[in-house]
Amino acid sequence: MKFTCPKQELLTAIGITSKAISSKPQTPILSGIYLRAEGNQLELQSTDYEIGIIYQLAADIDEPGQLVLSGRYLQEVIRRLPGDVVSISYDNQEKITHIQGGNANYTLRSMNASEYPGVHRLEGNLRFTIKDNLLRSLFKKTVFACSNDESRPVFTGVNMDIDGTTITLAGTNTHRLAVKKQVFDEPVGAMKLIIPAKTISEVLRILTSEVPSDVEVTCSFNQISFQYENIYFTGRLIEGAFPSFTNVIPKNGTTCVTMNTAELVSAMERVYLISRTSQYNFIKLSFADGNLHMYSSNPDIGMAEENVPASMEGPAIDIAFNADYLIDALKVLESESCTFSLTKPLAPVLITEPDDPDFIYVVTPMRTMH
Amino acid sequence: MKFTCPKQELLTAIGITSKAISSKPQTPILSGIYLRAEGNQLELQSTDYEIGIIYQLAADIDEPGQLVLSGRYLQEVIRRLPGDVVSISYDNQEKITHIQGGNANYTLRSMNASEYPGVHRLEGNLRFTIKDNLLRSLFKKTVFACSNDESRPVFTGVNMDIDGTTITLAGTNTHRLAVKKQVFDEPVGAMKLIIPAKTISEVLRILTSEVPSDVEVTCSFNQISFQYENIYFTGRLIEGAFPSFTNVIPKNGTTCVTMNTAELVSAMERVYLISRTSQYNFIKLSFADGNLHMYSSNPDIGMAEENVPASMEGPAIDIAFNADYLIDALKVLESESCTFSLTKPLAPVLITEPDDPDFIYVVTPMRTMH
Repeated sequence: MKFTCPKQELLTAIGITSKAISSKPQTPILSGIYLRAEGNQLELQSTDYEIGIIYQLAADIDEPGQLVLSGRYLQEVIRRLPGDVVSISYDNQEKITHIQGGNANYTLRSMNASEYPGVHRLEGNLRFTIKDNLLRSLFKKTVFACSNDESRPVFTGVNMDIDGTTITLAGTNTHRLAVKKQVFDEPVGAMKLIIPAKTISEVLRILTSEVPSDVEVTCSFNQISFQYENIYFTGRLIEGAFPSFTNVIPKNGTTCVTMNTAELVSAMERVYLISRTSQYNFIKLSFADGNLHMYSSNPDIGMAEENVPASMEGPAIDIAFNADYLIDALKVLESESCTFSLTKPLAPVLITEPDDPDFIYVVTPMRTMH
Repeated sequence: MKFTCPKQELLTAIGITSKAISSKPQTPILSGIYLRAEGNQLELQSTDYEIGIIYQLAADIDEPGQLVLSGRYLQEVIRRLPGDVVSISYDNQEKITHIQGGNANYTLRSMNASEYPGVHRLEGNLRFTIKDNLLRSLFKKTVFACSNDESRPVFTGVNMDIDGTTITLAGTNTHRLAVKKQVFDEPVGAMKLIIPAKTISEVLRILTSEVPSDVEVTCSFNQISFQYENIYFTGRLIEGAFPSFTNVIPKNGTTCVTMNTAELVSAMERVYLISRTSQYNFIKLSFADGNLHMYSSNPDIGMAEENVPASMEGPAIDIAFNADYLIDALKVLESESCTFSLTKPLAPVLITEPDDPDFIYVVTPMRTMH
């Protein structure tokens, strides 16, 4: 095996492929990146058995072949290599890989490429295409609401409900719920699946194009894959049934408050500062007379308060929240303003934004001593 | 107590004062920053009993007084406060501190200011003034060579030998030695002291002026202090006698090699990459025919080699080093080129640079299997 390619492109490929390498690989070979040179194309593969990545790039292939190199050392060596072009060749006699760039020569031991499990492309039962910016929005606006508690696996992922022309994503940790949907022109099919939050976070790191590009999504009963430009990403799904959440969503609030999103987030972060790390990790909100008064306290440290203007309809109301549950949601909003629909101090609140009617967020307040 | 001052200036003051707050304070009050308002000046103090800092800044004092606030919360609150101006007042009745900026109001609990140990200005036996850029160079070029091994305290600090018009600083971990001196126009006195490397690192973080400023240094038998602009920094010294090192410095090398410093460092870092974290943490250097060939290997990973041009006088020589010991020193050099003076594969090497004849570095090679 022997090939030459631009250093920066190889480094990008290694950077993305490395995402599927576990810090504690199940077997030594999974600490490696599999490289295959064929035709005029170099293919990199990596997997931790949960997710798998295939990255393809153009290269001058002098001699086709395959090898598996330590992901960590390959990345460090290529990153520091002088020159703009890198040559990699595998010596079958010596069983070592030569890497050359500028004045520098490295050799790296290759693992046995024939033992590499490989990443297989998913056939799937359902397939649809979506622009990456739309998929990014679906994922970003739901994944933050998931739980970290591995004892209830279904809540550690985002539920994706494909039903005709509508795809609905939902994430919850049982105290809060984020729901975002996307309507397509043509029917997509029907399928329900739960995608692990970690998988979605990795996909979000890859979907970074400046101009909207197509992502081809393929789903099977236990796996989902994304083909995006020259990157193929596949991941296992979470087994189980996601509970119905439609009756959790409050219907008609009696108090409706609209505020400036950025102003609200920064004031809330300041007020929450004092209680964030303590057992008193809530913030009290008093909506009255066109004003939101925020208050938080911590007997060991002190207290903080701040006011922001609020355009109100309906009666005044006092309510308390784990402020992280509000801040996390406010940070994914895309509109200049946001609206809180409230009914009672202990009833869930509905948060919406004018520029995206397809997104809703529900959060349960906290019971506090007054 | 009541005062108003520009937020950014107070934040800078808190940032510097925080450096003397231990992450594990010996007593709760040492987690605080002491503030004293008097005349038209605000003074901040902090100490962990090893080092102490006093920072003075101008403020509008409405009512003089003193208080001690949690360093961590004071910093976080001031950092996020809206507006350009901050007002702080202490309410003697309620025993709480009010902090106000823009629309935001905080209250922080004050610790008992009368219990604060305070930072006392050192009288000292010897005093001299030096430009901060010169002091920075003295410290930077020696402190990196110190040991981390607390079992031999004298090597965890830099020896400062004041003798007439010359101040000589030396740091060593017994495998390497960095010596830098500074000659003054007037005699300074005579004194020997060992400054902890940690103290020097903190002083280096403070000495950051763009234009050379005066630093007044005061020394006593167990303490040293630095007055720099509006910052007073004081630290304890290490007790003990620093060994004589003059006969460790090689006299005349038989092979003298000059190389480009930047080129040498980057090639050495690349070659060392392969063996850095392993038990084979050395790099082999072969000086011959106007060329330095560097080589390092690690049986588990692979091997690396690179060549850099070397202007040589004297016979060819092969020698091996812990590459960190070379790289650390090469990185503090200020000259475009550097010179290695070598004699035998197992004899110490002398490294010098043309633009600073007052700096020398000696490093012992490693014994390796060939």
